[in-house]
Order: sequence, then C-alpha cells, then structure tokens
Amino acid sequence: MITLEVRTNSREEIVDLTDQVGAALSRAGLVEGLCHLFVPHTTAGIAIHENADPDVKRDILMALDKLVPDDPAFRHAEGNSAAHIKSILSGASASLPVSGGRLELGTWGGIYFCEFDGPRRRKLHLSFAGTDQGGEPLFL
Amino acid sequence: MITLEVRTNSREEIVDLTDQVGAALSRAGLVEGLCHLFVPHTTAGIAIHENADPDVKRDILMALDKLVPDDPAFRHAEGNSAAHIKSILSGASASLPVSGGRLELGTWGGIYFCEFDGPRRRKLHLSFAGTDQGGEPLFL
Amino acid sequence: MITLEVRTNSREEIVDLTDQVGAALSRAGLVEGLCHLFVPHTTAGIAIHENADPDVKRDILMALDKLVPDDPAFRHAEGNSAAHIKSILSGASASLPVSGGRLELGTWGGIYFCEFDGPRRRKLHLSFAGTDQGGEPLFL
Repeated sequence: MITLEVRTNSREEIVDLTDQVGAALSRAGLVEGLCHLFVPHTTAGIAIHENADPDVKRDILMALDKLVPDDPAFRHAEGNSAAHIKSILSGASASLPVSGGRLELGTWGGIYFCEFDGPRRRKLHLSFAGTDQGGEPLFL
Repeated sequence: MITLEVRTNSREEIVDLTDQVGAALSRAGLVEGLCHLFVPHTTAGIAIHENADPDVKRDILMALDKLVPDDPAFRHAEGNSAAHIKSILSGASASLPVSGGRLELGTWGGIYFCEFDGPRRRKLHLSFAGTDQGGEPLFL
Repeated sequence: MITLEVRTNSREEIVDLTDQVGAALSRAGLVEGLCHLFVPHTTAGIAIHENADPDVKRDILMALDKLVPDDPAFRHAEGNSAAHIKSILSGASASLPVSGGRLELGTWGGIYFCEFDGPRRRKLHLSFAGTDQGGEPLFL
C-alpha cells in the first residue's frame, strides 16, 4: 500500500491527484493490473472526473450542495451530516485499470479527491494488484 | 469467496458489518492486499461510513429518503423503484485495503450494509486478493 | 484488459452489458476471483441493477434527471455538467466476484452501462484478477 497525503484548504474542495497517483504507480512497478483507491475518511470521497475545465470542479461541488443541503433535521452532533452523505454519494473507493504501466483513465479522466468537511490533512490509500515488468504477480 | 448472511428487520435499515468482515478476513488469512465487498441485491447497497455516532445512520437514511422519495411517476410494477435508485447511489461494491492482516478503514470507518426494501434475508459477498503470511499470492 | 465497445443511440440510455461481460469472462478464463469494470468516460457510469423489468431502466434515468436537472447556474462551457454529476453518482468502477467461472451477480443483477450524454461510441474496460482452472494466478 502506498499512502498519499493531501492537505485541503477549504470547507469544500476538489483536489486533482492524477499526477501523484501516476507517480506512485511508477514507484510500485505495476505494469498490468489494477490500482485501487481508498479514502479512509467519512467526510471525503473519490471521483473519477474530467480534469480539462476547472468549472467542472465548481459545478460538481455546487450540484452536490443542492442535492444535500445542510438540514436542521440532521441529528448528528458534529453538524457535518451533509458531508457524510456527500461522501457516500461520491464513494470511498474506486478501481482503475493499469495497462502498459499507465492508468487507463480515458482522454479526459482525472482522479479527484473530494473534500466535504475541510480544511484538513487527508490520506488516500493506493493498492496495486497485477503483474510487474517480468510478468510476475505483484501486490502492493 | 466468503458470503455473510444478513437479516434486516425494517423497510430501511443500516447494519454495521465491520466486525463480521474483520472476522472473515482473519479466516481468509489475507495479510496484504484487498478485501472486495459486493451486494448481490438490487435494492440494497454498501457504504463505508462513520460508526461512532448512531445518529449518522438515521441521518443517512433520512437524507437518501429526501433525495429519492416515492414518486407516483415511477412505473416499475413492484413499487420499489426508490429502493433501486438508492441502491445505485450508495453502490453495490467497494474495495478496502488490507495491511498487516487488518482492514485499513481509518479511525471512524465502518462497513454499512444499507437495506432499502426490507425486511429480508440478504447476503454480502467478500473476495480477497493479495498475499498471505508467507508472502504467497492468495485469492479467495 | 478486455475492452467492450458500446454504441449508444440516445442522449440518455441504459445498455445492459451482462451477457457481453459474461462472454469476456469466459474468454479470459478466470474461474475464481474478481471482474473489475471501469468506464473511461466522464459523462457515463456503471450500475449493477435489476434486469428483469424494463421499467426499472426508465425509472432510474427519470430519478437521476430529477436529482440533477439541467441548471442555469452550471458554468462548464460544454453544457453537460448534469451528465458529469450523474456519472459521479452512478460511479465509474465496480468490482464483481467470480466463482466457478461465473459472475456472482445475484438473482436479478445485471450490468448496466449508463449513458448520460449520448449518442456516442463508448468503451467499458474489464480487468480480471484471480485464478484459472488450474488454480494458477491469472491477471488480465
């Protein structure tokens, strides 16, 4: 497992981790197989999304905010229930194919870490399963 | 594959399966790698979520209910379309990293089985991929 | 990795790929393990869902449309922000258990490719990890 550290600077924020995950993949030495992402937090999530236009990030956060506004009916004492629900909607894990030593994300795909209750120090766990350059099984 | 049996007691209910998944992991003997969860039902889902405060469970079900209320425009004859949509929003699968023989869920993370059309008998399939104590590949 | 080609014919459409994924699984020769699905597009998604009643497909698209309507507040220049958010809600990846050479989808489970910004030519990447008929590790 390789763990990336992420520092978020706002209450809600999307951080593009595509390059860091790609660098970790190179370090891991996986050539064919899968890169699994896991967010070990319950008020953040992961999304595979378009990294071409910065307005997409804003639109995603705005749309999730309209979907799950702060609601006086929430009982959770910490007052961050909306962030918990957004985390469920975006998801805590994702599995990305790796081919020829590269992430197969598609033309526009980026790896977005979604912060819903920041600013905080966060982690993203990366696990790798497949074969290395010699075709031998590799788990990391 | 190891299959857990879950009995739900209400129409909508969140069942914390963190301990049962941990016990299955021990039985499987996986030390490094991944534990994959899959819900083989189309009106239930899986969420990785905070297991500290019971109010979070209630807030999640309430928020999903506000997001996808029963709608007279639904045509599906069984009348449980809202449950189907909630199942898609929470998701049918998740992949959790395992390190040193333990689930890397984070401080507050719990594994929540989400029932949206109970009470029923349900299943959760667990698959394991990685290496055992001797560093040998293990698939279960 | 095996890549399926999908042609969609409408702006929004759900395409049942259960049979094609099953056929790819047979070609791959995986007997025990996991089949990972990944959508390399940011305006489409994957859902595991009920393939018995065609009305369920319609209800899913209608419910997602009510959840994320076109919104004049969206700024993304291409005008397809709603499709991007729907893609995040349904998810880009899923992991399905394989046992005895067959997908363990449950009685009613089907693999739904969700098009939110068609018609287009689309892809679905399939990765396989586990063991073959001889019990040897297999990654594809």
